[in-house]
Amino acid sequence: MKLLRFGESGYEKPGIVDDNGDIRSLEGFVEDVTGGMLGAVSLEKLKALDLTTLPLAPKGARIGPCVGKVGKFICIGLNYSDHAAESGMTLPDEPEVFTKATSAICGPDDDIIKPKNSTKMDWEVELALVIGKEAKYVSEAEAEEYIAGYCVCNDVSERAFQLERGSQWDKGKGCDTFGPIGPWLVTSDEVGDPTNLDMWLEVNGKRYQNGSSRTMVFKPAFIVSYLSQFMSLQPGDVISTGTPPGVGLGQKPPVYLNVGDKISLGIEKLSTQNQTVV
Amino acid sequence: MKLLRFGESGYEKPGIVDDNGDIRSLEGFVEDVTGGMLGAVSLEKLKALDLTTLPLAPKGARIGPCVGKVGKFICIGLNYSDHAAESGMTLPDEPEVFTKATSAICGPDDDIIKPKNSTKMDWEVELALVIGKEAKYVSEAEAEEYIAGYCVCNDVSERAFQLERGSQWDKGKGCDTFGPIGPWLVTSDEVGDPTNLDMWLEVNGKRYQNGSSRTMVFKPAFIVSYLSQFMSLQPGDVISTGTPPGVGLGQKPPVYLNVGDKISLGIEKLSTQNQTVV
Repeated sequence: MKLLRFGESGYEKPGIVDDNGDIRSLEGFVEDVTGGMLGAVSLEKLKALDLTTLPLAPKGARIGPCVGKVGKFICIGLNYSDHAAESGMTLPDEPEVFTKATSAICGPDDDIIKPKNSTKMDWEVELALVIGKEAKYVSEAEAEEYIAGYCVCNDVSERAFQLERGSQWDKGKGCDTFGPIGPWLVTSDEVGDPTNLDMWLEVNGKRYQNGSSRTMVFKPAFIVSYLSQFMSLQPGDVISTGTPPGVGLGQKPPVYLNVGDKISLGIEKLSTQNQTVV
Repeated sequence: MKLLRFGESGYEKPGIVDDNGDIRSLEGFVEDVTGGMLGAVSLEKLKALDLTTLPLAPKGARIGPCVGKVGKFICIGLNYSDHAAESGMTLPDEPEVFTKATSAICGPDDDIIKPKNSTKMDWEVELALVIGKEAKYVSEAEAEEYIAGYCVCNDVSERAFQLERGSQWDKGKGCDTFGPIGPWLVTSDEVGDPTNLDMWLEVNGKRYQNGSSRTMVFKPAFIVSYLSQFMSLQPGDVISTGTPPGVGLGQKPPVYLNVGDKISLGIEKLSTQNQTVV
């Protein structure tokens, strides 16, 4: 299933994509697409619905972030060997973990706001996973059952804020609109193997990132197991798993985003995002 | 006013402390103590209540975290010069910003769980502020009006997870129960000057931290203004402002927490917390 949220920011309604690619409203069946409805039982109930009986969403409705009320928005840094190299950083022995502010979350096609005093705004196409069931000390073997599904994430970053203003990265990762997720949360059964998905990102029509989740160092199941050794993960938590090579910082010379730039990105089976920098 | 939440974890009810120090229920007046009721208008309405007409909370009720539905739990690192020195770290030129997982938040007297494989569990008494109004690019001069109030926070930390498992601190800061906040959120008008409050922490009756917010490097108003240049702050966001000297890591030799240890901590005007490590 492809679950989503549509409508104005802050007032999104739950939706689902039907076999024709049309968006149907799930109002009346679920209150919202949040952690609370991502458990296996709830998903099975939705799966049993005849989508053709559901009302179509209004044409041209805005698509919101595909999960609401996200509790934690965790990212794995330097999880593709080539990306670590282009960033001038050593590949870590174990996952590098940082946090994006949940207030940075926005819809997949929303404008991205260039912060005041930003000089090094950058892009990162990433495969994000969404937790479906509370995870504490789970093994890698059982971790997959805790993943409700996957979505595209642009881990927008301000490199000067991230790397030149202290040792911790939070300042350059959590700016408003720096976390578009969606358009849909594609459930795990429909994604199949998450470690073999093509992923790409273009700025103003030029392709900068052209990779595959095949070259991830730490895979989704390992990441969920690993994180759950440090903290419990709740349904609706979003974990973005790192970016392949081709970010702006890695260009020679570096290329950063400016007002008016158009970003397009996508991941196989998970659809695309289109943003304008404002 | 002293606002709080009482009752079982996950089912807390809103409360307020009356002039006798008794807890009164605010049920029927507010749904919960969350960001949504921390604006100036809502607080004025509560202030007008005759507390003696409100029902008393059950004797011995558990005290929960003083704010519910926290969106962001942000911390300022190395914000006391002596603490930076004892940690062997340089005092930063500007605030060092990191994030604690919101799932780490617990009540002020709840047990603190020693994570599996923890060897260097440590304490940090901190003055935390709670945002009352959305803050974006606010100046230091106007920042105080965005602060609803203050509370005690124990920024419990696992130093091996924090410092020996990668460059980012999140793994050692966000473990479950590593963020007791409360017992009360004391509104700004009642706290007065937040930069002159005595603060202390004891483990098994031995005083390790004995400081004052007087020696903070970056003060609350500056911190709110500073953070709001990077990301918007929402009502109910909790920002913990750093710890004075005396953490376990700074002892010679270092002292870390073990199962059975009793921690007591407090800040002038904000009351105390009492935890057992389990």
